[in-house]
Amino acid sequence: MQGCPVSLQEQTKPQLNEPPQSFENVNERYRYVRLATEELCRSLSDEDCTPQSMTDASPVKWHMAHTTWFFETFLLRPSVPEYEPFHPKFEYLFNSYYHSVGERHPRPKRGLLTRPSRNEVLEYRAHVDAAMESLLASQANPDIDALTEMGCHHEQQHQELILTDVKHLFWQNPLLPSYSSNGDSTNEIADIDMEWLPNDGGLVSVGHDSDGFAFDNERPCHQVILQPFEFGSRLVTNEEYSDFINDGGYEKSEFWLSEGWDTIQRRGWNAPLYWVRGDEGWSQFTLLGLVPLVGSEPVCHVSYYEADAFARWYGARLPREFEWEAMAEGEPVFGNLLEQQQYRPTSLSQGAPLQSPAQLFGDVWEWTQSPYVAYPGFVPSAGSLGEYNGKFMCNQIVLRGGSCVTPQSHIRSTYRNFFAPDARWQFSGIRLARDCSL
Amino acid sequence: MQGCPVSLQEQTKPQLNEPPQSFENVNERYRYVRLATEELCRSLSDEDCTPQSMTDASPVKWHMAHTTWFFETFLLRPSVPEYEPFHPKFEYLFNSYYHSVGERHPRPKRGLLTRPSRNEVLEYRAHVDAAMESLLASQANPDIDALTEMGCHHEQQHQELILTDVKHLFWQNPLLPSYSSNGDSTNEIADIDMEWLPNDGGLVSVGHDSDGFAFDNERPCHQVILQPFEFGSRLVTNEEYSDFINDGGYEKSEFWLSEGWDTIQRRGWNAPLYWVRGDEGWSQFTLLGLVPLVGSEPVCHVSYYEADAFARWYGARLPREFEWEAMAEGEPVFGNLLEQQQYRPTSLSQGAPLQSPAQLFGDVWEWTQSPYVAYPGFVPSAGSLGEYNGKFMCNQIVLRGGSCVTPQSHIRSTYRNFFAPDARWQFSGIRLARDCSL
Amino acid sequence: MQGCPVSLQEQTKPQLNEPPQSFENVNERYRYVRLATEELCRSLSDEDCTPQSMTDASPVKWHMAHTTWFFETFLLRPSVPEYEPFHPKFEYLFNSYYHSVGERHPRPKRGLLTRPSRNEVLEYRAHVDAAMESLLASQANPDIDALTEMGCHHEQQHQELILTDVKHLFWQNPLLPSYSSNGDSTNEIADIDMEWLPNDGGLVSVGHDSDGFAFDNERPCHQVILQPFEFGSRLVTNEEYSDFINDGGYEKSEFWLSEGWDTIQRRGWNAPLYWVRGDEGWSQFTLLGLVPLVGSEPVCHVSYYEADAFARWYGARLPREFEWEAMAEGEPVFGNLLEQQQYRPTSLSQGAPLQSPAQLFGDVWEWTQSPYVAYPGFVPSAGSLGEYNGKFMCNQIVLRGGSCVTPQSHIRSTYRNFFAPDARWQFSGIRLARDCSL
Amino acid sequence: MQGCPVSLQEQTKPQLNEPPQSFENVNERYRYVRLATEELCRSLSDEDCTPQSMTDASPVKWHMAHTTWFFETFLLRPSVPEYEPFHPKFEYLFNSYYHSVGERHPRPKRGLLTRPSRNEVLEYRAHVDAAMESLLASQANPDIDALTEMGCHHEQQHQELILTDVKHLFWQNPLLPSYSSNGDSTNEIADIDMEWLPNDGGLVSVGHDSDGFAFDNERPCHQVILQPFEFGSRLVTNEEYSDFINDGGYEKSEFWLSEGWDTIQRRGWNAPLYWVRGDEGWSQFTLLGLVPLVGSEPVCHVSYYEADAFARWYGARLPREFEWEAMAEGEPVFGNLLEQQQYRPTSLSQGAPLQSPAQLFGDVWEWTQSPYVAYPGFVPSAGSLGEYNGKFMCNQIVLRGGSCVTPQSHIRSTYRNFFAPDARWQFSGIRLARDCSL
Repeated sequence: MQGCPVSLQEQTKPQLNEPPQSFENVNERYRYVRLATEELCRSLSDEDCTPQSMTDASPVKWHMAHTTWFFETFLLRPSVPEYEPFHPKFEYLFNSYYHSVGERHPRPKRGLLTRPSRNEVLEYRAHVDAAMESLLASQANPDIDALTEMGCHHEQQHQELILTDVKHLFWQNPLLPSYSSNGDSTNEIADIDMEWLPNDGGLVSVGHDSDGFAFDNERPCHQVILQPFEFGSRLVTNEEYSDFINDGGYEKSEFWLSEGWDTIQRRGWNAPLYWVRGDEGWSQFTLLGLVPLVGSEPVCHVSYYEADAFARWYGARLPREFEWEAMAEGEPVFGNLLEQQQYRPTSLSQGAPLQSPAQLFGDVWEWTQSPYVAYPGFVPSAGSLGEYNGKFMCNQIVLRGGSCVTPQSHIRSTYRNFFAPDARWQFSGIRLARDCSL
Repeated sequence: MQGCPVSLQEQTKPQLNEPPQSFENVNERYRYVRLATEELCRSLSDEDCTPQSMTDASPVKWHMAHTTWFFETFLLRPSVPEYEPFHPKFEYLFNSYYHSVGERHPRPKRGLLTRPSRNEVLEYRAHVDAAMESLLASQANPDIDALTEMGCHHEQQHQELILTDVKHLFWQNPLLPSYSSNGDSTNEIADIDMEWLPNDGGLVSVGHDSDGFAFDNERPCHQVILQPFEFGSRLVTNEEYSDFINDGGYEKSEFWLSEGWDTIQRRGWNAPLYWVRGDEGWSQFTLLGLVPLVGSEPVCHVSYYEADAFARWYGARLPREFEWEAMAEGEPVFGNLLEQQQYRPTSLSQGAPLQSPAQLFGDVWEWTQSPYVAYPGFVPSAGSLGEYNGKFMCNQIVLRGGSCVTPQSHIRSTYRNFFAPDARWQFSGIRLARDCSL
Repeated sequence: MQGCPVSLQEQTKPQLNEPPQSFENVNERYRYVRLATEELCRSLSDEDCTPQSMTDASPVKWHMAHTTWFFETFLLRPSVPEYEPFHPKFEYLFNSYYHSVGERHPRPKRGLLTRPSRNEVLEYRAHVDAAMESLLASQANPDIDALTEMGCHHEQQHQELILTDVKHLFWQNPLLPSYSSNGDSTNEIADIDMEWLPNDGGLVSVGHDSDGFAFDNERPCHQVILQPFEFGSRLVTNEEYSDFINDGGYEKSEFWLSEGWDTIQRRGWNAPLYWVRGDEGWSQFTLLGLVPLVGSEPVCHVSYYEADAFARWYGARLPREFEWEAMAEGEPVFGNLLEQQQYRPTSLSQGAPLQSPAQLFGDVWEWTQSPYVAYPGFVPSAGSLGEYNGKFMCNQIVLRGGSCVTPQSHIRSTYRNFFAPDARWQFSGIRLARDCSL
Repeated sequence: MQGCPVSLQEQTKPQLNEPPQSFENVNERYRYVRLATEELCRSLSDEDCTPQSMTDASPVKWHMAHTTWFFETFLLRPSVPEYEPFHPKFEYLFNSYYHSVGERHPRPKRGLLTRPSRNEVLEYRAHVDAAMESLLASQANPDIDALTEMGCHHEQQHQELILTDVKHLFWQNPLLPSYSSNGDSTNEIADIDMEWLPNDGGLVSVGHDSDGFAFDNERPCHQVILQPFEFGSRLVTNEEYSDFINDGGYEKSEFWLSEGWDTIQRRGWNAPLYWVRGDEGWSQFTLLGLVPLVGSEPVCHVSYYEADAFARWYGARLPREFEWEAMAEGEPVFGNLLEQQQYRPTSLSQGAPLQSPAQLFGDVWEWTQSPYVAYPGFVPSAGSLGEYNGKFMCNQIVLRGGSCVTPQSHIRSTYRNFFAPDARWQFSGIRLARDCSL
């Protein structure tokens, strides 16, 4: 298995496990994010970086190139007249879905691009990085800074996808390779009771309203009315989910949305993705290879349909996205995030403090019951970046809170992730809520 | 083309074009609704009532039997111990989607049931009607009355589907048969300007809160906050939609949701369903056969994707469902509904009165931008009828207001219809809204 | 269930169970064949005649119209200048696959043609019959006679298809309707041993060489060399096929062609089409309804893959088409054919006479191992009828001998039927052969 | 792009362009063939060797491992008790289709095996080669020799597939990489007339009857009768095929088999695979990159459907496989084969000698009109190798003569290649024949 070319190895590595609490300026953020991407891919071979395991996933090499294409397309080409594109075809090859930028290589064929090689993609990255350094070093320009910050957040989204897509790729291989051997040992931990944290609801303010970065879909900040509700004090665990399975959860239609029931029949689902039943009980495929299922860890890799059915079986429901946001308001962004390098959700070691839900950030994205729609008064970003979020506001469900592979500097309480209700390859899990009993 | 058997023709026909303003009791409602169904099918041949043009549609004969199955299954079997089911297999054959009732005949094979014959289905209806008359004539029972009323509303939903499904079936036939020759002539009418009716928003109460019938999905009544908005004074017309087409609306990705763009590419859509381009311009297939497109009529048979794209092209947006409901609050249920027997949307003959939107009820179902979700505190109906609405609350969009084939006694301002965003065979059209300019 | 219109019932019915041994002239043949078609459909309702159970099958009404279209298109339009076509659209609606005639209604949509009604199709038939009678009554014309004879054989092919397609349609209906109650009781009969009839092979003449009617694909007559072989004295029975199933025939890949193995996996086949396993053993759906499986009857409704796998399991092989023809040379055309009105293969009541195989004609079409190819020197028929056979000479397998629903006057020893190797809805069964042991 | 590991580069390279006329013994053949495979892959990167462009194709790395698996499975495991398999999972990973050997990795997922790495596969090859050398060096054993020879021919089939699969993979890449820059320049050469070489037919002997190696499907040798025919003196050229296109060949159904017509409609074919129409006329994608189409070169990458349609348009037909074999009887195996390292068919430089067809071997595989069936008396190889050929004898067409990427020591006049009629990614072209005019 050959690794990264020598030149990169000599560079100063960002210390991923000691992430900056904040960045002094956008140049620092740019450098940190760009190196972090390459660091994530270092242990992978050229071959690992090439195939595409399904249409929803992309090759690692493609992620490395596409994030670079973003800076070339939205910053260097429009703002640096003397900029020489690295390769005339890359605009076509590495466009993801921006119709306004031009034609694209067909998504299902990304895994057939054996050329450019990974080394050439690294040269492409270096070429763009050099030009970006010059651009950022020239006189300050708030628009450039804003677009660069956007590009960094875009790349952080792809850092998460690199890991979820590699996991899915390795899962197709009967050798079940592991991405990392970093993770701590994962011991079963004694049960922590689910408690119900009350919230009075009423008029609450939701959405992003500060100066910091946020995507267009988090704006504008506005008021909504919430009915009183109760919020689960922690995430649902593998053990609780096993109880659902053992109780025939996948065989009883009364727990399921109609589309969910059809989906589990058609695809033969009877457990979360990556669960493997063996003679000794369940195992779970992780980025650290195949390991025994740990009951106290948060359940992960469930679809919206499964999360919703579990909640109904439990006698609860999924939270609405604004209920989640109301609970997260003011909570510190802290948890099992990418920089912890666990690459899997981990057990809760102690109960949450009074009134404060545990595991809000990190571990797993939490399915809400809210379809992904525009906030009242939503205005998409200007230009091609208007295609970033708005055009996906259909048949998607909002998830909140980030996962064990989300960079810490990328997540916040107003952040809205979204996936189709049948998506399972993300680190997606279950938070419960319920209406107040009278 | 042979019609209905003699026996039925001798019965007193309900006067569909003189619908009762209200029903004295549930018996009267039952009789009216049941006869109205048979009246709708009278002009169709046995052959017309047999095939299924696509999985989403059902054969007329199946609709006639399934609505009867509803009363047999939810009223007669549980409440009349001595009731003899008409046929032991009908419970299986005519169950639509109620898992809790038992196994079902596969939906895509409904069109292959040449037996029972239509005559046998009419006998089935008579058998159930007789038993229902007895049941309703026995001492009053509010639960029986409520379930019967529910069954009547269920049957009225299928009355609408009988017409939309026959229209779709006839469309597959190059002979382009017509269902009716009743309709008035349809002349082009001078343009009525689109006006924008302002609404201040704020705290409004939505959902059903009176004693009358409503589906579980309209409850509970609750408060929401609306931002100030403006509401289109009338429906979008064929002429306006033609302008969108002529302006390249179907070729410009910037107007479209991502899924919408994929859908129109994959299916080759470039106009509403049932539009036919000829040498002399557009024609439109209707229940009255193929007729020239009338520019002043409301555009119809568009998907959510097309409605949304049109609105974006127009510089407006679709209304949220509560914006629609706020505008409809207090408006009389009046319009081009089934009893008018026009079987197509009709031109607006004069401007709406000040502050009051025209065409709220009837003509076309109006796509909102709201995904179909549960209201806070939603509790599904008890028992098997809990499957009626709740399990479809995923990947569906709410439509409001009823269409030209909706029975008048079936619609109300809180009524929530829902279809997948790519559905076009319903009478679905476009109402516009927009944010208030500051 | 309403039957045929009165007018037809008054006509003299052909006595299907007393078929003519030969026809005096083509007029007589025409009348016999045309009435036989209508007789076959008499017991079916209008509804039964409408749907299409799969793309490979067609509605009964379509068969009735298409066979009429054949005479209109290939005889009346070209040869009778004053002929008035019955309906301008029927040329389009009822063309099966003749590109040279013009565009066609899409095959998968044949079942959606509720109009024309069955009565209108019967009027279409009467219209064409009247014109054909005039044409045939005018002075003799060998070309007209030959085309008419061809049209009669074409219609007889569709008579067989009417029954196989109705059987497949009724199979989709959980009520399992029966087409007829005519059939004799079907008792188990004592085993008759399989014997092996030797044939020395050598130079044999194959193909059609007499004056009588034959399709173009049976010509030219030519010589081939056959190696010595042995030919099974009778058809394979249900009991023998059950032994194959019980021995794990469907679970052992070594018996199967690669495509066959893939096919049975993908479609979940584990028995012939129409076999139903119950608590009391196998039943079989027939045109007489569901009946217990009779072990001594010929196995039926197997694909080529299954026939081939069975033969390999048995230690034999399927015959080559010329081996079959060599064995049938000189044998009388006699057996359980359509006119016996059994509508199912029947048990062999006694052993075949020495050297003469039993059940050569009728009961089931016998899969050969020969792909359907052109004979050396093959010349397709002139004009559009050149599309009749030649263009299907790819990925089809030859079957020989006719079935229990093949008209007696339609079959002969040189007749080549052909179907794709996965077809099972025809009455197709198994004849064995083997190489000579040295 | 990194190449082969150092160790292999130090080995003596086989001189692929000076192939041995024959091998002294099986050891020599083994060494030559094994090194030739690695030589073919030397210029490819690890990334090039990983993906699978379609289900019919396989990754280069998989070919390298599977051919090794063959020797491990059929020679070392059964015959060398002390042999240690290289990796316990490789039996599963690199089995192609041998059911009797056990379960297999699913074919469509071969391209997702990023592990084992190419280097590990090379180690696997070295491990097996060492054990094979020992086995072959031990005392002579005719069975071992025969199986080894079979394994060599098997590997040579995969050498051809490596090149056809890489070509197909590179074709998916908009950068259109080239495999080699070796090829000669390819100039247009003056037309050489098509002549018709007569053959009297009659009784001819076909199939393999000598001591040399042949696959089971070439046996037994037997006699057939051929009608007199004429055979095209050379292959059909790009120019002739362009005439077919320009004459509307792809738009006229009368030239096409029914399945062929459906196929070209469904897939939108209007030229051979790899043809690219530009402003300056046609170009052709080759293993040497995109080059202008040379009219005098043999047309290549056509399906059976296209070959058959071209022949009908031309007024000729495709040869039967025994007509081809009769013409090739006694002809030297000589032509543009793999060792010429042209990697594409080349123009004929001069007319064929009297009575002897040109281009019989090499350049392109020649579609015959013969479905792939067993010869009379065919007996599959014993054991698992019985799955090699026999189970594919369905829905495949025979091709003869080898192509520009077929090793010379692999082809012979009795050799039967076979592909499905819609396959185009092989180097498949057109030889014409016709019936004798009287």
